[in-house]
Amino acid sequence: MKKIVKIAVDAMGGDNAPRKIIDGIIHHNNKSKNIEYKIFGNSNLIEPLIKKSNLSKDSYEIIHTDQKISGEDSAFSAAKKGKNTSMWLAIDSVKNNLSDIVISAGNTGALLVIAKLNLKMIENIDKPALSALWPNKIGMNVVLDLGANVECNEKNLIDFSIMGSALHAALFDNTKPKVALLNIGSEQIKGNAIIKNTFQELKNNNSPLYDFSGYIEGNHIMDGKVNVIVTDGFTGNIALKTAEGTANFITSELKDALTNNIFGKISSLLNYKNLKNFKNKLDPRLYNGAILLGLNGPVVKSHGGTDFIGFSNSLSVSEKIVRNNLIEKIKNSII
Amino acid sequence: MKKIVKIAVDAMGGDNAPRKIIDGIIHHNNKSKNIEYKIFGNSNLIEPLIKKSNLSKDSYEIIHTDQKISGEDSAFSAAKKGKNTSMWLAIDSVKNNLSDIVISAGNTGALLVIAKLNLKMIENIDKPALSALWPNKIGMNVVLDLGANVECNEKNLIDFSIMGSALHAALFDNTKPKVALLNIGSEQIKGNAIIKNTFQELKNNNSPLYDFSGYIEGNHIMDGKVNVIVTDGFTGNIALKTAEGTANFITSELKDALTNNIFGKISSLLNYKNLKNFKNKLDPRLYNGAILLGLNGPVVKSHGGTDFIGFSNSLSVSEKIVRNNLIEKIKNSII
Repeated sequence: MKKIVKIAVDAMGGDNAPRKIIDGIIHHNNKSKNIEYKIFGNSNLIEPLIKKSNLSKDSYEIIHTDQKISGEDSAFSAAKKGKNTSMWLAIDSVKNNLSDIVISAGNTGALLVIAKLNLKMIENIDKPALSALWPNKIGMNVVLDLGANVECNEKNLIDFSIMGSALHAALFDNTKPKVALLNIGSEQIKGNAIIKNTFQELKNNNSPLYDFSGYIEGNHIMDGKVNVIVTDGFTGNIALKTAEGTANFITSELKDALTNNIFGKISSLLNYKNLKNFKNKLDPRLYNGAILLGLNGPVVKSHGGTDFIGFSNSLSVSEKIVRNNLIEKIKNSII
Repeated sequence: MKKIVKIAVDAMGGDNAPRKIIDGIIHHNNKSKNIEYKIFGNSNLIEPLIKKSNLSKDSYEIIHTDQKISGEDSAFSAAKKGKNTSMWLAIDSVKNNLSDIVISAGNTGALLVIAKLNLKMIENIDKPALSALWPNKIGMNVVLDLGANVECNEKNLIDFSIMGSALHAALFDNTKPKVALLNIGSEQIKGNAIIKNTFQELKNNNSPLYDFSGYIEGNHIMDGKVNVIVTDGFTGNIALKTAEGTANFITSELKDALTNNIFGKISSLLNYKNLKNFKNKLDPRLYNGAILLGLNGPVVKSHGGTDFIGFSNSLSVSEKIVRNNLIEKIKNSII
């Protein structure tokens, strides 16, 4: 029998919590086996939602608390609210080896601070990184850092290469991911000093974990020619959000074009299946959430605005991370 | 009668030069009046192209040279090739007050270096900026810097706010453009020290030229709520190229979806006009090219890969820049 994976779930974070969270667990449970969900939050709200489902009693445990961190809390005030909030207790459960991984759809800043405070960094890693999945022509990239660190030095970027590769290997069964460094040109002379130094070090490293492919420009992120894209948190956040804004702009223009008169409506109806395939492929729920790397325990951040299917997909990512021993692999690769 | 605008055109840069360049001039001339095109390049190639058109003899002049800068030249080797290349001569024509503006579809790095060498900076501006038009829901933003400067200080970013506003005012008849600073969050505490200091200075400036709207995140660039988006050249280049890559990815997926079977083909045919409107609105030729700001003379860089319609649109931008005295306006606003 497969090992039981214990997932600590903060049930009180994100839009429509805890309903979305519990529905996500139920959806995930219908396709996964050997998972134990440790659900942190208000049991008066959670129990009625679970009772209506087919979730068996031995696959979950509710750890009651009526305290939670809100989306409006600053990271500082969230950390002060402290130890009895659902987010803190869920993280604590990983710290105390009662759970294998923690997931929350709540306040990102608070999650970063409380996770770092409790789980501590892996030895020899200075900064944690927020990584996420980013679709490309043939599958998914891992991109990091997406905003945990405004400024990064060479060592940080090299650590990100290792951690991102370990993540891509764990999620997609990729034996030697291709790593590229985000830059404003493909020639060696482009970019600032930190990027140029990192390029040289990655080139000379000959890591057994990944192949270094050199620089990548923003317009090639989605080509599918590399697997892991490394950048500092400022640049990564700008790139991710600009891509999101561009996608929203185009799909909203397209929607207008396809429905703004009777011809548009009829033809869209005729073309329903093709358009549905198109929509499915771009569905942001497929690559929902971010993974916080570098801590002594895995932390997954689901998008606050996703629905139960998006949350369920983040639970699948969590399961894979544990089954493939991501943290052990990172620890063994960091020099 | 309107003032004659003299445009120095490097006819030898970009794909399909000089044919595309000359066709662009002819196309522009059909809708514009009172323009004099000073065309720099190989007259043996240029004259036969013009002869077949209705371009009147008094609206153009060919300045012959058989030397040109190629796309493969480094900025350094381009500058060394020097004074007899079509690009250099075209820039020289602005320097010597024989032309009002210069436009090239050639090597961007070479254009930056040769223009800076010859035209010099406007007093009190330390760094030139590459700015471009970026479509949004209701019109066009100006975004700068897009890659001329990898690192920028507070003074540079404030200069970019002034120059970008003057450009938006000149192109879109906007009396007081709204300026925003690209950042990774909307709260005042986000970003690095340079961005936070610039925020404070822009907030306190009370410029008569623009209104400061605060920070903007990448996902809101295309919302149409501001007019000028200011950032350093590294971040701007990553954002622009990431948007380009995302747009290419989505439109290629859409094309596949709309044509991959007989239903798709029929419905696309039925919906031809709507899809054409959609395509037109996203047509990159509409916002082709970049404007180099901060020099003692306006310089327009057309995309090397655009066609004659895109080049013609850059000629329209050039005309507006001159008719609205962009450089004078910048000079009067720089403190």
